Amino acid sequence: MKILFVGGTGTIGKKVTAKLQEKHELVLAGSRSGDVQFDMTDYRSIEGMFQKIGKVDALVVAAGGAYMGPLAQLTEEHFYQGIRSKMMGQINLVLVGQHYLNNGGSITLTSGILSEDPIANGTVLSAINNAVNGFVVGAAGELLQRGIRINVVSPGLVEDSAEAIGSYFPGHNPVPMDRVVNGYIKSIEGIQTGQVIKVY
Amino acid sequence: MKILFVGGTGTIGKKVTAKLQEKHELVLAGSRSGDVQFDMTDYRSIEGMFQKIGKVDALVVAAGGAYMGPLAQLTEEHFYQGIRSKMMGQINLVLVGQHYLNNGGSITLTSGILSEDPIANGTVLSAINNAVNGFVVGAAGELLQRGIRINVVSPGLVEDSAEAIGSYFPGHNPVPMDRVVNGYIKSIEGIQTGQVIKVY
Ligand SMILES: NC(=O)c1ccc[n+]([C@@H]2O[C@H](COP(=O)([O-])OP(=O)(O)OC[C@H]3O[C@@H](n4cnc5c(N)ncnc54)[C@H](OP(=O)(O)O)[C@@H]3O)[C@@H](O)[C@H]2O)c1
Ligand SMILES: NC(=O)c1ccc[n+]([C@@H]2O[C@H](COP(=O)([O-])OP(=O)(O)OC[C@H]3O[C@@H](n4cnc5c(N)ncnc54)[C@H](OP(=O)(O)O)[C@@H]3O)[C@@H](O)[C@H]2O)c1
Repeated sequence: MKILFVGGTGTIGKKVTAKLQEKHELVLAGSRSGDVQFDMTDYRSIEGMFQKIGKVDALVVAAGGAYMGPLAQLTEEHFYQGIRSKMMGQINLVLVGQHYLNNGGSITLTSGILSEDPIANGTVLSAINNAVNGFVVGAAGELLQRGIRINVVSPGLVEDSAEAIGSYFPGHNPVPMDRVVNGYIKSIEGIQTGQVIKVY
Repeated sequence: MKILFVGGTGTIGKKVTAKLQEKHELVLAGSRSGDVQFDMTDYRSIEGMFQKIGKVDALVVAAGGAYMGPLAQLTEEHFYQGIRSKMMGQINLVLVGQHYLNNGGSITLTSGILSEDPIANGTVLSAINNAVNGFVVGAAGELLQRGIRINVVSPGLVEDSAEAIGSYFPGHNPVPMDRVVNGYIKSIEGIQTGQVIKVY
């Protein structure tokens, strides 16, 4: 399979792509790293990236961020940062990418545990992650008509990020990277669609 | 209790407010109808509305829409309509409203069944509804510190809308209005917080 992997050089992406490259042809995309550069927060840049790469069998996204901070001080701009990046960045990759996916292909997005297991300062991510989950649930039925599957991997705090950000997640059990990798493999090589694949 | 009810003149709102007014002091807000006019898609207008009304014991929102249409033709602007209205409209009402809520008060938002039970042409609503659900899950813990509760009522297709829009919801069982009303009553007068109150 030809797989376009957005965020393939990130903490999660590099472990997933290391596994995928054993069997698949990978194109890594990032804002500065990877085989092709583009900006996922910019719809036109997404279009340009797909025009360069052409048809693919799978689109995977493990990228996009959102602001963290206390609810009492949040502004709408704090939300719009996450909307433009992790929410609409991923959704726009699907809106554009659906027309570049071969029939029978698949799409795999990334959300995260905060959608249902919240932490202090995490309200924006709880909203954004759940928006991505809802998008996948909503989109699956129409993509099915072309045999295209769509799922979202929702990881807990991953092992490789535990040292850097674990203190924000009191009592969370860091998820071993091989389980995180398997979440993406299940979506890409499996048969499910419309699923939130929880890895925690 | 003094209750600010945004959307109190709508299909759902008018049945809920009819019940609430037996026991509470209501202020209805809408873009054209109600006791006070404002635009929930405009942050400044929300601020102006709260400055006019002052402190309240409960904020209820049964308002906000999103675009419906086939996934293959959706653009990012279709999503941003729903983001500005049903998603950020409600979230901004909370961001501003938290500072006007008396300690021990409550917030009740509205999402909908499409977050987990999708229909054709409903992808934007599936995403937006689930964003609102995630926001409530994320926000509850920090609001708790002031004794403020927050929940979201997620109605199925309601009985009073079945004639107008039921054909978009094949096989959905319209929800009796008294059950919908009770979803809001549970959130406003009950003790739960951080809950998605599913009425279907
Ligand atoms: N780490 C965790 O514990 C964890 C847990 C749950 C969910 N998640 C989610 O998983 C996703 C990946 O997390 P991560 O920790 O692996 O992130 P990361 O280490 O920061 O990697 C981010 C990746 O995204 C790319 N990227 C960043 N901005 C971009 C842009 N504007 N356009 C295109 N590509 C861009 C980066 O490449 P460039 O540097 O070249 O831009 C990089 O490959 C995020 O959505 C995160 O919220 C992470
Ligand atoms: N009806 C259903 O079957 C159903 C099912 C699940 C979820 N829902 C959700 O429940 C909510 C209410 O639905 P509904 O059917 O009762 O809607 P509706 O009949 O269209 O009523 C909308 C209410 O919101 C107010 N409103 C509209 N735009 C506004 C704005 N920009 N600023 C402030 N207020 C505004 C309206 O007052 P003005 O006219 O004065 O602006 C009206 O009171 C919506 O979020 C809907 O998605 C509905």
